Amino acid sequence: MTDHRPDALATTEAPEGEELYGVSDEQLREVQAALAEGRAAEIETIVRELHPADLADLLERLDSDERRQLLSTIRHSFDPETLTHLDETVREEVVEILGPKEVAHAITELDSDDAVEVLEDLDEDEKQQILASLPAAERALLVEGLTFPEDSAGRMMQREMVTVPTAWTVGETIDYMRASGGLPDDFYDLYVVDPAGKPAGSVRLSRVLRSRRPVPITRIMDAELDTIPAVTDREEVAHLFRQYGLVSAPVVDEQGRLIGVITVDDVVNVIDEEAEEDLMAIGRVGETDFHVPAHQTAFRRIRWLLVTLFNTMLASTVISRFAATIEQMVALAVLMPIVAAMGGNAGMQVVTVAVRALATRDLTDSNATRVLVKEIGVAALNSVVFALIMGLVALLWFHRWDLAVVLAGAMIFNMTWAGFAGVTIPLVLERFGVDPAVAAGPFLTTTTDVLGFFSFLGLATLFLL
Amino acid sequence: MTDHRPDALATTEAPEGEELYGVSDEQLREVQAALAEGRAAEIETIVRELHPADLADLLERLDSDERRQLLSTIRHSFDPETLTHLDETVREEVVEILGPKEVAHAITELDSDDAVEVLEDLDEDEKQQILASLPAAERALLVEGLTFPEDSAGRMMQREMVTVPTAWTVGETIDYMRASGGLPDDFYDLYVVDPAGKPAGSVRLSRVLRSRRPVPITRIMDAELDTIPAVTDREEVAHLFRQYGLVSAPVVDEQGRLIGVITVDDVVNVIDEEAEEDLMAIGRVGETDFHVPAHQTAFRRIRWLLVTLFNTMLASTVISRFAATIEQMVALAVLMPIVAAMGGNAGMQVVTVAVRALATRDLTDSNATRVLVKEIGVAALNSVVFALIMGLVALLWFHRWDLAVVLAGAMIFNMTWAGFAGVTIPLVLERFGVDPAVAAGPFLTTTTDVLGFFSFLGLATLFLL
Repeated sequence: MTDHRPDALATTEAPEGEELYGVSDEQLREVQAALAEGRAAEIETIVRELHPADLADLLERLDSDERRQLLSTIRHSFDPETLTHLDETVREEVVEILGPKEVAHAITELDSDDAVEVLEDLDEDEKQQILASLPAAERALLVEGLTFPEDSAGRMMQREMVTVPTAWTVGETIDYMRASGGLPDDFYDLYVVDPAGKPAGSVRLSRVLRSRRPVPITRIMDAELDTIPAVTDREEVAHLFRQYGLVSAPVVDEQGRLIGVITVDDVVNVIDEEAEEDLMAIGRVGETDFHVPAHQTAFRRIRWLLVTLFNTMLASTVISRFAATIEQMVALAVLMPIVAAMGGNAGMQVVTVAVRALATRDLTDSNATRVLVKEIGVAALNSVVFALIMGLVALLWFHRWDLAVVLAGAMIFNMTWAGFAGVTIPLVLERFGVDPAVAAGPFLTTTTDVLGFFSFLGLATLFLL
Repeated sequence: MTDHRPDALATTEAPEGEELYGVSDEQLREVQAALAEGRAAEIETIVRELHPADLADLLERLDSDERRQLLSTIRHSFDPETLTHLDETVREEVVEILGPKEVAHAITELDSDDAVEVLEDLDEDEKQQILASLPAAERALLVEGLTFPEDSAGRMMQREMVTVPTAWTVGETIDYMRASGGLPDDFYDLYVVDPAGKPAGSVRLSRVLRSRRPVPITRIMDAELDTIPAVTDREEVAHLFRQYGLVSAPVVDEQGRLIGVITVDDVVNVIDEEAEEDLMAIGRVGETDFHVPAHQTAFRRIRWLLVTLFNTMLASTVISRFAATIEQMVALAVLMPIVAAMGGNAGMQVVTVAVRALATRDLTDSNATRVLVKEIGVAALNSVVFALIMGLVALLWFHRWDLAVVLAGAMIFNMTWAGFAGVTIPLVLERFGVDPAVAAGPFLTTTTDVLGFFSFLGLATLFLL
């Protein structure tokens, strides 16, 4: 792999707030201008200076036509590593433009984990075409990689690693590493493997370097190894790395044999993607569609908007039950959105904290009751504060103390409910195997809308008319 | 640092969905029971088996009294590394229980970056007390670390690193590493430093191991070094690591001299915390308050609820302007929440995607116009879909085609506005240096509420009465 990184940051002296390096807006415009005027040499000069990650950014920021044009210009110097940095949607397009032969060639240049990542997102057709163009040995490895469940440790691991037998000394290990040509470019740990192929321990390279040649490798190895079964979910893998500050971890098959290694830089991507998933779920987008074409984006978002529509229609039927009351006292229509909105917002605060605490395993069955009691307390306390504020406002506005009391009562009820439901709904969803990040928000706001309108208009019907 | 990691995962055979290791609910209950009955020996046995990260979890899940009791039981065997894994709120409590002497002792055992992390969150008093209890050399290093801006590379870096002069060979380097006692436990890269103290390049340990002794170190070093100025914001640091797949990077002072190193495991924490910040901002919590006592939690959340209250009161004043209209046609009060909610939700989808794209630098000035055009298109398309659905529902419900048309018109207007505002508001906030994750949501929903009610009730007043 070649390294195209630009000069040291320290010499760049970028003004605050600007990207220290990466593709600047200016560079982007230069490329676009060069593409429009077909100046191929200039484009190649600019692209040659870019890190593959930056070239990927550039490709993402061009439109479809420009992308096609750029790729055909730089086709013969295209760095395969670029593929691993591309967003899924754009990558599919790039793969299609490059064609199966070119992509197959690119894949042979990548580490096995990156190659699997590129392959797994492709259509079945494309995948088969590309696999067919690969050398047999490589194909077998990738096909095997693809048999592991999606989002599993088996998909994340790379097969390239350095293993040594338990019988070796530090000297033999160093000689082997000096002589052997087929080792990965960079690695941080060695694995000591017993005759059955099971990992016996790991050795940090710094320990190898600091030990004398005759020392047996088993004496400097760390035998308390955290091995990860290949079927482990990647979220679990990320949790282990984060929790224990791991740098790399061995992956084992069902028989406990060492089959690959996961390094922390792969985990960075997973943590990032999992965080994005939670954010998109709370924002009711589903998954990020930034690079997805408009018509597909529209179609994908309809699902969540339908849920919202259903929720608010439910709230509307509640309101319609009290049409006669509203007709007699239109101030109710003015004030009712406040009850619903305050309940919804107080509840979403609790849902957000609970969803995060479930993801980081801070919230479990053992402390659920304590958290629930706390959140109900917090909600009740704040509901009284806001009931007093709004009661006073309603009194000054409409000059009716009984309206003020009804409003305050409904707010206390709805906001306290929100505290209770904000903890309970995520916990129940999790128990039933539904992702709370996705479903808890809509569930919650439906209850706070319905109960908000019902309690306020119901109390008003009973006491104000 | 001792290693308390439990046995290999592969042999644990945990049922799906359960934590592979960590503190189980059962263990927690055992500890709680042992604490209640004062069985100190049993507590020590359980705690001794725990990784510091798991002990931190255990401490977080106990209540205040239990925490105090546990700490006094294990005080003499307390692993300092536990401090680095604790949530900020709980850590303050633990530091107070342990007392400055004990904490100062703990801090001398930590890497400098971890020590700074523990210190920076403490009250000024505690900080000074603890610093005063430290050996002079250590104190000077930490005081210097604390002079860097909060959330900067200078705070993240560790001072412990391995540097070699440009004149050395691989052999001299290996001899130095074998002989020198004061090196860090584990490291992945060496830094080659010129006589002025500036980094000339980095060398992966795997390259040292695979090179022959007489080779000059400068020949195997990577001279294209990404140096990070100490004042760089940690978000920027995380971006660089993520973008370029870095494992470690040297930190330099204003003169370009090497003063520390940041490793990818520190970056994992930053990425995680930044993701949490965005999630909490979109959920309008501010910062996570899971471990914060109830009264403080209530107080912290009031701020965002006040914003919501202000927003909905604005919407209420709009509604009150149309009181006469609603009095004549109460169906308007039934349907108006739908217009506001659909606009708010469509807009929040756009805001969420835009906030994320700004954070990952996918959205910049160069493509802002294209993104805006796309999102307006998406919003307009979906607004028509939902206007047709709701128009039909309103027609069937209230048997008035003119009401259906007014409702559909208001929905198209409000949802299309949401598409426009969902991109524009985050961009404008970012331009003015306001965090869009925090402020864009409330801004947006205020506009969709106000415009939703205004357009629907306004059109109704014009055409239906």
